Amino acid sequence: MIIIGGGVGPMAGVLLHRKIIEATRTDGTDQDHLEVLHISRSPIIGDRTEYLQGKDVPDPAEGMFRVLHMATAAMAAEGSSDYPAGKAVAGIPCNTFHAPEIFRKFLSLLDGADIPVQTVNMIDETVQEVAARVSSRGTVGLLSTTGTRVSGVYHDYFRSGGYTVLEIPEEEQPALHEAIYHRAWGLKAVSPPDGRAVDRVFGYARELVRAGAEIVILGCTELPLAVPEGLVEGVPTIDPMTALARALVREEAPEKLRPLQEGGG
Amino acid sequence: MIIIGGGVGPMAGVLLHRKIIEATRTDGTDQDHLEVLHISRSPIIGDRTEYLQGKDVPDPAEGMFRVLHMATAAMAAEGSSDYPAGKAVAGIPCNTFHAPEIFRKFLSLLDGADIPVQTVNMIDETVQEVAARVSSRGTVGLLSTTGTRVSGVYHDYFRSGGYTVLEIPEEEQPALHEAIYHRAWGLKAVSPPDGRAVDRVFGYARELVRAGAEIVILGCTELPLAVPEGLVEGVPTIDPMTALARALVREEAPEKLRPLQEGGG
Repeated sequence: MIIIGGGVGPMAGVLLHRKIIEATRTDGTDQDHLEVLHISRSPIIGDRTEYLQGKDVPDPAEGMFRVLHMATAAMAAEGSSDYPAGKAVAGIPCNTFHAPEIFRKFLSLLDGADIPVQTVNMIDETVQEVAARVSSRGTVGLLSTTGTRVSGVYHDYFRSGGYTVLEIPEEEQPALHEAIYHRAWGLKAVSPPDGRAVDRVFGYARELVRAGAEIVILGCTELPLAVPEGLVEGVPTIDPMTALARALVREEAPEKLRPLQEGGG
Repeated sequence: MIIIGGGVGPMAGVLLHRKIIEATRTDGTDQDHLEVLHISRSPIIGDRTEYLQGKDVPDPAEGMFRVLHMATAAMAAEGSSDYPAGKAVAGIPCNTFHAPEIFRKFLSLLDGADIPVQTVNMIDETVQEVAARVSSRGTVGLLSTTGTRVSGVYHDYFRSGGYTVLEIPEEEQPALHEAIYHRAWGLKAVSPPDGRAVDRVFGYARELVRAGAEIVILGCTELPLAVPEGLVEGVPTIDPMTALARALVREEAPEKLRPLQEGGG
């Protein structure tokens, strides 16, 4: 079973869920799809950027641990024959959640409670996808929340691989964060997205391309709501959620992973 | 907590989940959204039309009962303070599942196992929405799977209200069913939808309008993938999933139901 640790944010979980369905190769029937347990408990999971900034919000690692605890109880209720220990694979559709301060604590909580769920790391999967498309010593553009930026979660991976990571000027970062978080017109607040947020994110993507990015990572799960995966001024954008969805299908049932060239995946 | 009894089909659950988020009025933060437990177990839930036709497929009522059993175990694991008995409300995003032969058995299985979950009936909610927009003795167009059509689930409700129910000619019904079910290009098989399926469904919606329908019910959860809720030749189409999503939010947290005129709902 695939577990979506959702609620970070709620719509990001829905996008990941859709991508899992689209990445699954089936015989065309409902019944040939993979089982998905999608738990969205945003009220108990504090904002990841605010947590990293030391604000007084519920610990995201503890909230997500409770989600996985709930998932484990659900699976146990349905018998060990369907779900042998270690058979479930979980993904968390939030880049900032993968900041080491949060993700490591989450993994240690799972270990301590002996929760038999394998976790896929969205950042690892995205870095591998970038490495398959951009040569080492290349330049990678990154758009993200302030939390992801400050935590350096992508930077550490890429610098060790010899890449240059390009971001928007630091003084512009609050404006990008606002496009995601503004309570009236931000990507988290409004569906479908507001033109202001879309224009601002597109503008920053273009800036990174003009500054030399060979690929642009849409490093917050809400950003692809504004800039779809594809090309910006001829340069590919990459949605970490696609990498996560494909990794979840691959780990759950490798024979069902739809090749990328079949489309939709 | 809102429970989505998903997997019927997998993408229908994702659409319902999105509509729940869009129907929720929040302060613009992730944390102000409702908790959703979305369980998609399509392999254990037989096709509803095939079941109604007497084919040898897993009983959809029993499969969905196992989904609700799983949901109950999940909620119990997280303590009774968060989820007092009777607080959860569940919806099943499949019109054909609401055929009396399936839905009544499902409800009686829940009753028998003392599962404390309230169920919202998508057909009831859709009928109420139609009644608010079309006067009694009016003409209601219905597009659906063969299973929904043959089971008469909508007909019984509307006829008792004095409405005339208009469907496509019976000899055309297999072609409509095929647009949903074809394993290479049907709406269940391909995402985003194939032009053949879209054209066929649009054509049938137009036929109903020309024959006098004052509203067209997109009476299978995959149909709105082809014909969005809106207008066809000036006549409104109605997506039962929107009615279901709004009813789930209303039952879970009435103060959070976004008024329809705010858009997005």
